[in-house]
Amino acid sequence: MTRLFNDPSEFAEEARLGVVAAHPDKLMAVPGGVVRSTRSKPGTVAVVIGGGSGHYPAFSGLVGQGLAHGAAMGNLFSSPSSQQVYSVAKAAHNGGGVLLTFGNYAGDVLHFGQARERLIKEGIPCEIVLVTDDISSASLEEIEKRRGIAGDLTVFKAASAAAEAGATLAEVVAVAAEANRRTRSFGVAFDGCTLPGAGDALFHVPAGRMALGLGIHGEPGISEQEVPTADQLAELLVARLLDEVPDGIPLNGARVAPILNGLGTVKYEELFVIYRRVDALLRDAGLTIVEPDVGELVTSLDMAGVSLTLFWLDDEMETLWRAPANTPAYRKGSVMVAEALDPAEFQQSLEREVPGASEASRQLAGGVLKALEILVETVDANADELGRIDAVAGDGDHGIGMQRGCHAALEAAREARDRQAGAETLLSFAADAWADRAGGTSGAIWGVILTSIGEALGDQQPLNAQRLAAGVSAAGSNVMSFGKARLGDKTLVDVLVPFGECLNEQAAQGSGVAWQIAAQRAQQAAEATAELLPKVGRARPLAEKSLGTPDAGAVSLSMIIRALTPLIKSCD
Amino acid sequence: MTRLFNDPSEFAEEARLGVVAAHPDKLMAVPGGVVRSTRSKPGTVAVVIGGGSGHYPAFSGLVGQGLAHGAAMGNLFSSPSSQQVYSVAKAAHNGGGVLLTFGNYAGDVLHFGQARERLIKEGIPCEIVLVTDDISSASLEEIEKRRGIAGDLTVFKAASAAAEAGATLAEVVAVAAEANRRTRSFGVAFDGCTLPGAGDALFHVPAGRMALGLGIHGEPGISEQEVPTADQLAELLVARLLDEVPDGIPLNGARVAPILNGLGTVKYEELFVIYRRVDALLRDAGLTIVEPDVGELVTSLDMAGVSLTLFWLDDEMETLWRAPANTPAYRKGSVMVAEALDPAEFQQSLEREVPGASEASRQLAGGVLKALEILVETVDANADELGRIDAVAGDGDHGIGMQRGCHAALEAAREARDRQAGAETLLSFAADAWADRAGGTSGAIWGVILTSIGEALGDQQPLNAQRLAAGVSAAGSNVMSFGKARLGDKTLVDVLVPFGECLNEQAAQGSGVAWQIAAQRAQQAAEATAELLPKVGRARPLAEKSLGTPDAGAVSLSMIIRALTPLIKSCD
Repeated sequence: MTRLFNDPSEFAEEARLGVVAAHPDKLMAVPGGVVRSTRSKPGTVAVVIGGGSGHYPAFSGLVGQGLAHGAAMGNLFSSPSSQQVYSVAKAAHNGGGVLLTFGNYAGDVLHFGQARERLIKEGIPCEIVLVTDDISSASLEEIEKRRGIAGDLTVFKAASAAAEAGATLAEVVAVAAEANRRTRSFGVAFDGCTLPGAGDALFHVPAGRMALGLGIHGEPGISEQEVPTADQLAELLVARLLDEVPDGIPLNGARVAPILNGLGTVKYEELFVIYRRVDALLRDAGLTIVEPDVGELVTSLDMAGVSLTLFWLDDEMETLWRAPANTPAYRKGSVMVAEALDPAEFQQSLEREVPGASEASRQLAGGVLKALEILVETVDANADELGRIDAVAGDGDHGIGMQRGCHAALEAAREARDRQAGAETLLSFAADAWADRAGGTSGAIWGVILTSIGEALGDQQPLNAQRLAAGVSAAGSNVMSFGKARLGDKTLVDVLVPFGECLNEQAAQGSGVAWQIAAQRAQQAAEATAELLPKVGRARPLAEKSLGTPDAGAVSLSMIIRALTPLIKSCD
Repeated sequence: MTRLFNDPSEFAEEARLGVVAAHPDKLMAVPGGVVRSTRSKPGTVAVVIGGGSGHYPAFSGLVGQGLAHGAAMGNLFSSPSSQQVYSVAKAAHNGGGVLLTFGNYAGDVLHFGQARERLIKEGIPCEIVLVTDDISSASLEEIEKRRGIAGDLTVFKAASAAAEAGATLAEVVAVAAEANRRTRSFGVAFDGCTLPGAGDALFHVPAGRMALGLGIHGEPGISEQEVPTADQLAELLVARLLDEVPDGIPLNGARVAPILNGLGTVKYEELFVIYRRVDALLRDAGLTIVEPDVGELVTSLDMAGVSLTLFWLDDEMETLWRAPANTPAYRKGSVMVAEALDPAEFQQSLEREVPGASEASRQLAGGVLKALEILVETVDANADELGRIDAVAGDGDHGIGMQRGCHAALEAAREARDRQAGAETLLSFAADAWADRAGGTSGAIWGVILTSIGEALGDQQPLNAQRLAAGVSAAGSNVMSFGKARLGDKTLVDVLVPFGECLNEQAAQGSGVAWQIAAQRAQQAAEATAELLPKVGRARPLAEKSLGTPDAGAVSLSMIIRALTPLIKSCD
């Protein structure tokens, strides 16, 4: 079980800071994840990987020379927000465009996709290649639906080696897709992992049993059997994979790079006992083994499981697989250590441009800044109360987290105002600062809210009721998709969605910015949520409340909406 | 728990073969462990590390350029035999002498010590430096009694970097001793590990509690408390270590290399969360941090625990710590990959010399060869029966293991005879072959028996009752010390010791080689052991029966003694 943590909702963020502290020669923290702290060749493609945290060395441990340029790091087992992905990609971008590559999970597909759109809008060429190596997660007919597991590594490695060698974005995309086509994995599990602070494991496999094809987050497997011997397991894994050799590869004489991966508590000696037999079986099948990897390469906290990956090589893939790499958790070959980036200079290069805005939008931006000031006053005045509410079902730090986030957001918004930003840009500065400084899911969610509203307002138009209403509704949808919460889960979604609906109804009726009416609806929703608080208690495992501190979040959102009423009324 | 294995008694050996299969570019299997598969600079000191298996990457994962030259690998949590250490050191020796360095455990101290004597006898300069970093295992006044834990790494690394740079054996010894003096560790544990096939963990810590100073094999700790937060644990570990800074190091401005080590199931993200705080605390204390290591560097199968090591650097130690290394589990800096050894040529270089022997001893060697032939016939004739007996309390493979070992021993003995070996050398050839080919503890024990008798017989003298009796008694003592079994544990010790005593009594009375009388005593002892077999059953955990398949071993030893009676009588 996972025993050592502080505030469970800060676990992923604290781990991110720790991995950077342990590897300053390779990693640099940027909002949303990490990038290399060494200089890459200008003009080369940046390979940006990522996904939920809890899978170390995926993903931050695979950033460094010869492997990824950056990793977007979400909360535990949760996709990073599109903002996090965007921020990391922006920092990793090196003039040659960006490849986003990651395991095929719905949340990741959505948020990396949104980030890609934002990058392209800013003129940064960006493509996506999904990893789909897990043969037990869908049939060959639906190969595109398969999940990505330890085969992530072969795709990341091949694409990154190609990028390092100066390939264009189109070439890197082709390499990544071909590496994915040539990669197949099969996994088994013996027990699930425990999230920090949870009373029990995320899932269980009955004692003495082995689940075949169980996903690394507990996604359903295909069957169950008794725990076999190490040799029997090796035989099972090899047989499954030899049964599905990718098209066009004659089995005899083929070259493979095997990866025998432990998920967390299947330890090294066990892996070596199994690998001993895997090695013999692959040789017996007439295969040539190229640079195998045996160890913990994609974990799931303390999950008990193991997977075998075969990467079927041709000359090009073999060259890319053998290419040197130097990351916190993955090294091969002789790497000449690259020049360290100067953090100050690097930060400067990350300075955001402010796109041109209309006079009307700059005025609107001024109004938004006032709204943020009121928001900060409201949060400051109620921080203790929010902490108290949060302590009922959460960790009691909601007030502190909100304060940290909104003060950072206000500061960034003032900078944007001073630089003549329009409403969208000002909200985007504020959103990034909030998500970055508040940390955790709650910070990311407020980033999503501000970004969504900003995108609806734009940098050119004056305030308009329909656009504002549409922005609030988009914020509701995006928060649900990001935080995995549905309406009725007693989270801030229960306030945000009816608030947006009410705004939209009124706007459709031509009632202007009907903030006051909608604010009443929001407050009713928050009260309904708050009433339930004592009944909810601390019983729900963290996994179910992936919004971090959701219930207090509903209350704080409704407070903020109410506090903004006089301001918004005044511009009605 | 450890779930994946075949025959539990073969687990360590199969893991050894697996780690070599996974890392052929770095490791080569030799009898008793592994050595580098790359060429080292001739004339440099060889650093040989080792200890029980179950601690990967200690010890095979730390063999390679810039780190150790070889690792002697015992059974799970059991010291390697002196023969294994000798064999690995012999293979690793590079013309500059050998440093044996390992954690301070009684079994290791004994067997590495015996190996050292044997190496020196053969003209190979050899020294020992013990690692004693665990501050909770003894007081500062008894610092030499402290155990070695994750601080192994700093001593191995500093000594190996010095050896790589061409230091003499005396210089490497001085570096290793100074690195040990400058290294302090403190560990905590949350639960014990499970040996393959055992029904329960080797030890437990009560749920929700943390044991301070608990050893990596469950050696008693110093106190127990509730599991703290990650930050509180960081504070505890740092405070303990800052409380015992090695002599002569002013705290402010000092340089340290921290190692935050996970024992097996405290996973990476937890380690990074803790390290984040450790890093801040060390900086707050005015220390400069040099190349920290955070990860799994010395494990104990699936033990839940963590330790912090501080290596207090001066200029020399910092240079050695920063030096490049390239091993299966430990890499830093830019390493030019060294030339691969040609396995055939390497095997040739390992060919053993046959020391000169007297005519009398060569004749005696002929008699020993006949004894080995009888031994082989006896084992072959009774292999099925031995398997059946072993199946009662063991894994049923005792017959097969004995056959594998004794046939290899006979073949090696014939080669020695053809090369004019004396009795000691012939038995030593046979012993090494048996231990190497039979594998497991039972093979190692027969190696100890044959070596002990050989050493008593020598290469110069004719057969003599006292010397033979002394050899058998030495075999009994050495087996007890190696296998951790005592008289009365119902193992082959219960046969070997009374047999030796009887021989000694008779020899003291001038009764010549009183084999027949002693053989009767041995048989009675074996019968007493065998009678208990059905009562012993499979209940005893593997850890308690560290002799592997002890009960069947008592029976086979007595069979062999009985079968030898006509031969030994004839030379009476």
